[in-house]
Amino acid sequence: MQIAIVLFDRFTALDAVGPYEMLCRIPGAETVFVAQQPGPVRNDRDDLALIADKGFEEVPAPDIVVVPGGPGQSAQMDNEALLDWLRTADATSTWTTSVCTGSLLLAAAGLLNGRRATSHWLALDGLARFGAEPTGERVVTDGKFITAAGVSSGIDMGLTLVGRVAGDEHAQTVQLGTEYDPQPPYDAGSPQKAPAALVDKLRARSRFILR
Amino acid sequence: MQIAIVLFDRFTALDAVGPYEMLCRIPGAETVFVAQQPGPVRNDRDDLALIADKGFEEVPAPDIVVVPGGPGQSAQMDNEALLDWLRTADATSTWTTSVCTGSLLLAAAGLLNGRRATSHWLALDGLARFGAEPTGERVVTDGKFITAAGVSSGIDMGLTLVGRVAGDEHAQTVQLGTEYDPQPPYDAGSPQKAPAALVDKLRARSRFILR
Repeated sequence: MQIAIVLFDRFTALDAVGPYEMLCRIPGAETVFVAQQPGPVRNDRDDLALIADKGFEEVPAPDIVVVPGGPGQSAQMDNEALLDWLRTADATSTWTTSVCTGSLLLAAAGLLNGRRATSHWLALDGLARFGAEPTGERVVTDGKFITAAGVSSGIDMGLTLVGRVAGDEHAQTVQLGTEYDPQPPYDAGSPQKAPAALVDKLRARSRFILR
Repeated sequence: MQIAIVLFDRFTALDAVGPYEMLCRIPGAETVFVAQQPGPVRNDRDDLALIADKGFEEVPAPDIVVVPGGPGQSAQMDNEALLDWLRTADATSTWTTSVCTGSLLLAAAGLLNGRRATSHWLALDGLARFGAEPTGERVVTDGKFITAAGVSSGIDMGLTLVGRVAGDEHAQTVQLGTEYDPQPPYDAGSPQKAPAALVDKLRARSRFILR
Protein backbone atom coordinates (compact mmCIF):
# COMPACT_ATOMS: atom_id res chain seq x y z
CA MET A 1 0.00 0.00 0.00
CA GLN A 2 1.49 3.29 -1.11
CA ILE A 3 0.51 6.56 0.59
CA ALA A 4 1.40 9.74 -1.30
CA ILE A 5 1.47 13.07 0.54
CA VAL A 6 1.59 16.01 -1.83
CA LEU A 7 3.85 18.98 -1.17
CA PHE A 8 3.83 22.39 -2.84
CA ASP A 9 5.44 25.72 -2.10
CA ARG A 10 3.97 27.42 1.01
CA PHE A 11 2.04 24.40 2.27
CA THR A 12 1.18 24.28 5.99
CA ALA A 13 3.49 21.80 7.71
CA LEU A 14 1.06 20.28 10.22
CA ASP A 15 -1.51 19.71 7.45
CA ALA A 16 0.94 17.19 5.99
CA VAL A 17 2.74 15.84 9.05
CA GLY A 18 -0.40 15.33 11.19
CA PRO A 19 -1.97 12.70 8.93
CA TYR A 20 1.50 11.38 8.02
CA GLU A 21 2.23 10.46 11.65
CA MET A 22 -0.98 8.39 11.82
CA LEU A 23 -1.00 6.85 8.33
CA CYS A 24 2.67 5.81 8.30
CA ARG A 25 1.79 3.32 11.05
CA ILE A 26 -0.54 1.31 8.80
CA PRO A 27 1.10 -2.14 8.60
CA GLY A 28 2.90 -2.60 5.31
CA ALA A 29 2.35 0.96 4.18
CA GLU A 30 4.99 2.85 2.22
CA THR A 31 4.64 6.59 2.68
CA VAL A 32 6.15 8.97 0.15
CA PHE A 33 6.25 12.75 0.02
CA VAL A 34 5.72 13.81 -3.57
CA ALA A 35 5.88 17.13 -5.43
CA GLN A 36 6.02 18.37 -8.99
CA GLN A 37 9.81 18.14 -8.72
CA PRO A 38 11.66 16.12 -6.08
CA GLY A 39 13.66 18.10 -3.54
CA PRO A 40 13.08 20.46 -0.62
CA VAL A 41 9.71 22.19 -0.40
CA ARG A 42 9.35 25.24 1.85
CA ASN A 43 6.29 25.86 4.01
CA ASP A 44 4.12 28.94 4.47
CA ARG A 45 6.60 30.56 6.88
CA ASP A 46 9.65 29.72 4.78
CA ASP A 47 11.43 28.42 7.89
CA LEU A 48 10.59 24.72 7.48
CA ALA A 49 11.44 22.47 4.55
CA LEU A 50 10.27 18.94 3.98
CA ILE A 51 11.92 16.93 1.25
CA ALA A 52 9.76 15.54 -1.54
CA ASP A 53 11.56 12.26 -2.20
CA LYS A 54 9.76 11.74 -5.49
CA GLY A 55 8.31 13.75 -8.36
CA PHE A 56 4.75 13.28 -9.62
CA GLU A 57 5.90 11.09 -12.51
CA GLU A 58 7.46 8.57 -10.15
CA VAL A 59 4.24 8.08 -8.15
CA PRO A 60 1.48 7.60 -10.71
CA ALA A 61 -0.84 5.29 -8.80
CA PRO A 62 -0.78 5.63 -5.00
CA ASP A 63 -3.41 3.79 -2.96
CA ILE A 64 -3.97 6.77 -0.67
CA VAL A 65 -3.57 10.43 -1.67
CA VAL A 66 -3.22 13.15 0.99
CA VAL A 67 -3.43 16.80 -0.08
CA PRO A 68 -2.50 19.41 2.54
CA GLY A 69 -3.48 23.05 2.37
CA GLY A 70 -1.88 26.31 3.30
CA PRO A 71 -1.43 29.80 1.91
CA GLY A 72 0.34 28.34 -1.15
CA GLN A 73 -2.83 26.52 -2.18
CA SER A 74 -4.24 29.45 -4.14
CA ALA A 75 -1.21 29.57 -6.44
CA GLN A 76 -1.75 25.86 -7.20
CA MET A 77 -5.39 26.30 -8.31
CA ASP A 78 -4.17 26.90 -11.89
CA ASN A 79 -1.25 24.47 -11.80
CA GLU A 80 -2.34 21.93 -14.40
CA ALA A 81 0.61 19.64 -13.59
CA LEU A 82 -0.65 19.28 -10.04
CA LEU A 83 -4.34 19.09 -10.97
CA ASP A 84 -3.59 16.50 -13.66
CA TRP A 85 -1.61 14.42 -11.21
CA LEU A 86 -4.47 14.58 -8.70
CA ARG A 87 -6.93 13.38 -11.35
CA THR A 88 -4.61 10.58 -12.48
CA ALA A 89 -3.82 9.45 -8.94
CA ASP A 90 -7.48 9.59 -7.97
CA ALA A 91 -8.46 7.42 -10.94
CA THR A 92 -6.90 4.38 -9.24
CA SER A 93 -6.68 5.40 -5.57
CA THR A 94 -8.57 3.63 -2.83
CA TRP A 95 -8.81 6.81 -0.76
CA THR A 96 -8.36 10.43 -1.80
CA THR A 97 -8.04 12.81 1.13
CA SER A 98 -7.27 16.39 2.06
CA VAL A 99 -6.58 18.63 5.02
CA CYS A 100 -7.50 22.31 5.32
CA THR A 101 -7.57 24.13 1.97
CA GLY A 102 -6.23 21.01 0.25
CA SER A 103 -9.89 20.25 -0.46
CA LEU A 104 -10.01 23.32 -2.72
CA LEU A 105 -7.33 21.66 -4.86
CA LEU A 106 -9.34 18.44 -5.03
CA ALA A 107 -12.38 20.53 -5.96
CA ALA A 108 -10.45 22.50 -8.60
CA ALA A 109 -9.40 19.16 -10.10
CA GLY A 110 -13.10 18.37 -10.44
CA LEU A 111 -13.04 15.53 -7.93
CA LEU A 112 -15.55 16.82 -5.39
CA ASN A 113 -18.47 17.74 -7.67
CA GLY A 114 -21.68 17.19 -5.73
CA ARG A 115 -19.81 15.59 -2.85
CA ARG A 116 -20.05 16.49 0.82
CA ALA A 117 -16.70 17.89 1.89
CA THR A 118 -15.03 20.23 4.35
CA SER A 119 -12.08 22.60 4.57
CA HIS A 120 -10.65 25.25 6.87
CA TRP A 121 -13.66 27.12 8.32
CA LEU A 122 -12.57 30.24 6.44
CA ALA A 123 -12.57 28.37 3.12
CA LEU A 124 -15.95 26.65 3.18
CA ASP A 125 -17.49 29.23 0.83
CA GLY A 126 -14.73 28.63 -1.67
CA LEU A 127 -15.43 24.93 -1.60
CA ALA A 128 -19.05 25.58 -2.60
CA ARG A 129 -17.93 27.73 -5.54
CA PHE A 130 -16.01 24.73 -6.89
CA GLY A 131 -19.00 22.42 -6.85
CA ALA A 132 -18.68 20.62 -3.53
CA GLU A 133 -21.27 20.63 -0.77
CA PRO A 134 -19.51 22.07 2.27
CA THR A 135 -20.31 20.88 5.77
CA GLY A 136 -19.00 22.18 9.06
CA GLU A 137 -17.93 18.76 10.35
CA ARG A 138 -14.30 18.17 11.27
CA VAL A 139 -13.82 15.04 9.15
CA VAL A 140 -16.16 14.30 6.24
CA THR A 141 -16.27 10.97 4.42
CA ASP A 142 -18.15 10.75 1.12
CA GLY A 143 -17.39 7.55 -0.74
CA LYS A 144 -13.63 7.26 -1.03
CA PHE A 145 -13.10 10.96 -0.34
CA ILE A 146 -12.18 12.06 3.16
CA THR A 147 -11.72 15.76 3.71
CA ALA A 148 -10.69 17.41 6.97
CA ALA A 149 -11.14 20.90 8.40
CA GLY A 150 -8.28 23.26 9.28
CA VAL A 151 -4.62 22.36 9.94
CA SER A 152 -4.75 20.18 13.08
CA SER A 153 -7.81 18.21 11.91
CA GLY A 154 -5.59 16.10 9.67
CA ILE A 155 -4.65 14.08 12.75
CA ASP A 156 -8.30 13.14 13.30
CA MET A 157 -8.64 12.41 9.58
CA GLY A 158 -5.53 10.27 9.57
CA LEU A 159 -6.59 8.24 12.58
CA THR A 160 -10.07 7.78 11.11
CA LEU A 161 -8.49 6.44 7.93
CA VAL A 162 -6.15 4.12 9.84
CA GLY A 163 -9.27 2.61 11.36
CA ARG A 164 -10.93 2.15 7.97
CA VAL A 165 -7.84 0.54 6.44
CA ALA A 166 -6.32 -1.41 9.35
CA GLY A 167 -9.22 -1.85 11.75
CA ASP A 168 -10.34 -0.19 14.97
CA GLU A 169 -7.93 -2.07 17.22
CA HIS A 170 -4.89 -1.06 15.21
CA ALA A 171 -6.10 2.54 15.09
CA GLN A 172 -6.43 2.51 18.88
CA THR A 173 -2.89 1.15 19.12
CA VAL A 174 -1.70 4.03 16.95
CA GLN A 175 -3.60 6.48 19.14
CA LEU A 176 -2.00 5.04 22.27
CA GLY A 177 1.46 4.94 20.74
CA THR A 178 1.24 8.58 19.70
CA GLU A 179 -0.45 9.42 23.01
CA TYR A 180 -3.22 11.23 21.15
CA ASP A 181 -5.27 12.24 24.17
CA PRO A 182 -5.58 15.94 23.35
CA GLN A 183 -5.96 18.43 26.17
CA PRO A 184 -5.89 21.90 24.61
CA PRO A 185 -5.25 24.60 27.20
CA TYR A 186 -8.02 26.76 25.66
CA ASP A 187 -11.38 26.00 24.07
CA ALA A 188 -11.25 28.30 21.05
CA GLY A 189 -10.58 25.83 18.26
CA SER A 190 -13.67 26.46 16.15
CA PRO A 191 -15.69 29.54 15.18
CA GLN A 192 -18.53 28.20 17.30
CA LYS A 193 -16.35 28.06 20.40
CA ALA A 194 -13.94 30.99 20.03
CA PRO A 195 -14.74 34.52 21.20
CA ALA A 196 -16.63 36.33 18.41
CA ALA A 197 -14.04 39.11 18.26
CA LEU A 198 -11.32 36.60 17.37
CA VAL A 199 -13.51 35.00 14.71
CA ASP A 200 -14.15 38.42 13.18
CA LYS A 201 -10.45 39.29 13.29
CA LEU A 202 -9.42 36.14 11.41
CA ARG A 203 -12.30 36.52 8.96
CA ALA A 204 -11.20 40.06 8.13
CA ARG A 205 -7.61 38.95 7.67
CA SER A 206 -8.62 36.01 5.49
CA ARG A 207 -10.05 38.26 2.78
CA PHE A 208 -6.49 38.85 1.73
CA ILE A 209 -5.14 35.31 1.87
CA LEU A 210 -7.93 33.01 0.70
CA ARG A 211 -9.37 32.75 -2.71
CA MET B 1 12.80 35.94 19.78
CA GLN B 2 14.53 32.88 18.37
CA ILE B 3 12.97 29.42 18.67
CA ALA B 4 15.31 26.49 18.02
CA ILE B 5 13.85 23.06 17.26
CA VAL B 6 16.45 20.32 17.50
CA LEU B 7 16.60 17.53 14.92
CA PHE B 8 18.54 14.27 15.09
CA ASP B 9 18.50 11.06 13.12
CA ARG B 10 15.33 9.00 13.67
CA PHE B 11 13.37 11.73 15.46
CA THR B 12 9.56 11.50 15.40
CA ALA B 13 8.19 14.04 12.95
CA LEU B 14 5.05 15.14 14.81
CA ASP B 15 7.09 15.68 18.01
CA ALA B 16 8.83 18.51 16.17
CA VAL B 17 6.16 19.80 13.80
CA GLY B 18 3.30 19.86 16.35
CA PRO B 19 4.89 22.49 18.61
CA TYR B 20 6.46 24.18 15.57
CA GLU B 21 3.03 24.89 14.07
CA MET B 22 1.92 26.63 17.27
CA LEU B 23 5.15 28.42 18.25
CA CYS B 24 5.93 29.79 14.78
CA ARG B 25 2.84 31.98 15.17
CA ILE B 26 4.27 33.94 18.11
CA PRO B 27 4.53 37.52 16.82
CA GLY B 28 8.09 38.40 15.91
CA ALA B 29 9.39 34.89 16.44
CA GLU B 30 12.08 33.41 14.22
CA THR B 31 11.91 29.62 14.16
CA VAL B 32 14.92 27.59 13.13
CA PHE B 33 15.43 23.85 12.78
CA VAL B 34 18.89 23.03 14.07
CA ALA B 35 21.03 19.88 14.12
CA GLN B 36 24.63 18.92 14.76
CA GLN B 37 25.23 19.46 11.05
CA PRO B 38 22.90 21.45 8.78
CA GLY B 39 21.10 19.50 6.07
CA PRO B 40 18.35 16.90 5.75
CA VAL B 41 17.53 14.84 8.84
CA ARG B 42 15.56 11.61 8.41
CA ASN B 43 12.82 10.56 10.81
CA ASP B 44 12.16 7.27 12.57
CA ARG B 45 10.53 5.72 9.49
CA ASP B 46 13.21 6.98 7.10
CA ASP B 47 10.48 8.21 4.73
CA LEU B 48 10.33 11.83 5.91
CA ALA B 49 13.16 14.35 5.95
CA LEU B 50 13.11 17.80 7.49
CA ILE B 51 15.96 20.14 6.70
CA ALA B 52 18.04 21.54 9.55
CA ASP B 53 18.78 25.00 8.22
CA LYS B 54 21.50 25.60 10.78
CA GLY B 55 24.11 23.67 12.72
CA PHE B 56 24.47 23.90 16.50
CA GLU B 57 27.33 26.39 16.25
CA GLU B 58 25.18 28.88 14.35
CA VAL B 59 22.45 28.92 17.04
CA PRO B 60 24.25 29.33 20.36
CA ALA B 61 21.63 31.26 22.32
CA PRO B 62 18.00 30.64 21.33
CA ASP B 63 15.23 32.07 23.50
CA ILE B 64 13.17 28.89 23.29
CA VAL B 65 14.57 25.37 22.85
CA VAL B 66 12.33 22.50 21.69
CA VAL B 67 13.65 18.93 21.87
CA PRO B 68 11.58 16.25 20.15
CA GLY B 69 11.86 12.55 20.87
CA GLY B 70 11.65 9.41 18.85
CA PRO B 71 13.43 6.07 18.51
CA GLY B 72 16.65 7.91 17.64
CA GLN B 73 16.75 9.52 21.09
CA SER B 74 18.60 6.60 22.71
CA ALA B 75 21.54 6.95 20.31
CA GLN B 76 21.81 10.64 21.30
CA MET B 77 22.07 9.94 25.04
CA ASP B 78 25.87 9.72 24.68
CA ASN B 79 26.23 12.41 22.01
CA GLU B 80 28.26 15.00 23.88
CA ALA B 81 27.95 17.49 21.01
CA LEU B 82 24.18 17.48 21.39
CA LEU B 83 24.21 17.38 25.20
CA ASP B 84 26.74 20.23 25.31
CA TRP B 85 24.62 22.30 22.95
CA LEU B 86 21.55 21.69 25.12
CA ARG B 87 23.43 22.85 28.23
CA THR B 88 24.80 25.93 26.47
CA ALA B 89 21.46 26.87 24.93
CA ASP B 90 19.68 26.32 28.23
CA ALA B 91 22.12 28.58 30.04
CA THR B 92 20.56 31.62 28.37
CA SER B 93 17.15 30.37 27.19
CA THR B 94 13.89 31.75 28.48
CA TRP B 95 12.13 28.40 27.98
CA THR B 96 13.58 24.93 27.53
CA THR B 97 11.04 22.39 26.34
CA SER B 98 10.66 18.83 25.11
CA VAL B 99 8.16 16.45 23.57
CA CYS B 100 8.01 12.69 24.12
CA THR B 101 11.42 11.12 24.84
CA GLY B 102 13.08 14.47 24.19
CA SER B 103 12.85 14.95 27.97
CA LEU B 104 15.30 12.05 28.40
CA LEU B 105 17.83 14.10 26.44
CA LEU B 106 17.24 17.13 28.67
CA ALA B 107 17.62 14.85 31.68
CA ALA B 108 20.81 13.27 30.29
CA ALA B 109 22.19 16.77 29.88
CA GLY B 110 21.59 17.25 33.61
CA LEU B 111 18.92 19.88 33.16
CA LEU B 112 16.00 18.18 34.89
CA ASN B 113 17.60 17.16 38.20
CA GLY B 114 14.91 17.27 40.86
CA ARG B 115 12.41 18.82 38.48
CA ARG B 116 8.90 17.63 37.77
CA ALA B 117 8.76 16.48 34.16
CA THR B 118 7.00 14.13 31.78
CA SER B 119 7.71 12.03 28.70
CA HIS B 120 6.06 9.36 26.58
CA TRP B 121 4.14 7.14 29.00
CA LEU B 122 6.49 4.27 28.17
CA ALA B 123 9.54 6.37 29.09
CA LEU B 124 8.53 7.75 32.50
CA ASP B 125 10.68 5.22 34.36
CA GLY B 126 13.70 6.25 32.31
CA LEU B 127 13.10 9.86 33.26
CA ALA B 128 13.30 8.95 36.95
CA ARG B 129 16.60 7.13 36.40
CA PHE B 130 18.07 10.39 35.09
CA GLY B 131 17.11 12.40 38.15
CA ALA B 132 13.80 13.99 37.19
CA GLU B 133 10.53 13.52 39.04
CA PRO B 134 8.14 12.04 36.48
CA THR B 135 4.45 12.88 36.53
CA GLY B 136 1.69 11.47 34.37
CA GLU B 137 0.39 14.87 33.27
CA ARG B 138 0.30 15.73 29.58
CA VAL B 139 2.15 19.04 29.86
CA VAL B 140 4.34 19.77 32.87
CA THR B 141 5.76 23.20 33.66
CA ASP B 142 8.51 23.49 36.30
CA GLY B 143 10.18 26.87 36.24
CA LYS B 144 11.31 27.53 32.70
CA PHE B 145 11.12 23.85 31.73
CA ILE B 146 8.03 22.60 29.91
CA THR B 147 7.96 18.91 29.06
CA ALA B 148 5.21 17.14 27.17
CA ALA B 149 4.05 13.53 27.00
CA GLY B 150 4.07 11.37 23.86
CA VAL B 151 4.22 12.58 20.23
CA SER B 152 0.92 14.49 19.76
CA SER B 153 1.17 16.24 23.15
CA GLY B 154 3.65 18.70 21.68
CA ILE B 155 0.71 20.57 20.20
CA ASP B 156 -0.77 21.13 23.66
CA MET B 157 2.69 22.09 24.94
CA GLY B 158 3.22 24.52 22.08
CA LEU B 159 -0.13 26.21 22.54
CA THR B 160 0.45 26.44 26.29
CA LEU B 161 3.77 28.16 25.64
CA VAL B 162 2.23 30.54 23.07
CA GLY B 163 -0.11 31.64 25.84
CA ARG B 164 2.74 32.18 28.30
CA VAL B 165 4.80 34.19 25.80
CA ALA B 166 2.15 36.05 23.76
CA GLY B 167 -0.90 36.03 26.02
CA ASP B 168 -4.11 34.05 26.21
CA GLU B 169 -5.91 35.97 23.48
CA HIS B 170 -3.16 35.41 20.96
CA ALA B 171 -2.98 31.73 21.89
CA GLN B 172 -6.73 31.44 21.31
CA THR B 173 -6.27 33.11 17.92
CA VAL B 174 -3.62 30.52 17.07
CA GLN B 175 -5.94 27.74 18.21
CA LEU B 176 -8.75 29.10 16.03
CA GLY B 177 -6.47 29.64 13.05
CA THR B 178 -5.18 26.08 13.23
CA GLU B 179 -8.70 24.83 14.02
CA TYR B 180 -7.36 22.93 17.00
CA ASP B 181 -10.67 21.52 18.18
CA PRO B 182 -9.60 17.87 18.42
CA GLN B 183 -12.19 15.15 17.92
CA PRO B 184 -10.33 11.82 17.98
CA PRO B 185 -12.44 9.00 16.54
CA TYR B 186 -11.38 6.73 19.43
CA ASP B 187 -10.69 7.27 23.13
CA ALA B 188 -7.52 5.22 23.54
CA GLY B 189 -4.90 7.94 23.74
CA SER B 190 -3.51 7.19 27.19
CA PRO B 191 -2.74 4.02 29.16
CA GLN B 192 -5.60 4.94 31.50
CA LYS B 193 -8.11 5.03 28.65
CA ALA B 194 -6.91 2.38 26.20
CA PRO B 195 -7.89 -1.30 26.44
CA ALA B 196 -5.45 -3.06 28.80
CA ALA B 197 -4.43 -5.55 26.12
CA LEU B 198 -3.19 -2.75 23.89
CA VAL B 199 -1.27 -1.16 26.77
CA ASP B 200 0.38 -4.51 27.49
CA LYS B 201 1.23 -5.01 23.83
CA LEU B 202 2.98 -1.66 23.51
CA ARG B 203 4.72 -2.12 26.85
CA ALA B 204 6.13 -5.48 25.74
CA ARG B 205 7.30 -4.01 22.45
CA SER B 206 8.91 -1.01 24.16
CA ARG B 207 11.42 -3.19 26.01
CA PHE B 208 13.30 -3.35 22.76
CA ILE B 209 13.14 0.27 21.71
CA LEU B 210 13.41 2.41 24.84
CA ARG B 211 16.39 2.80 27.07
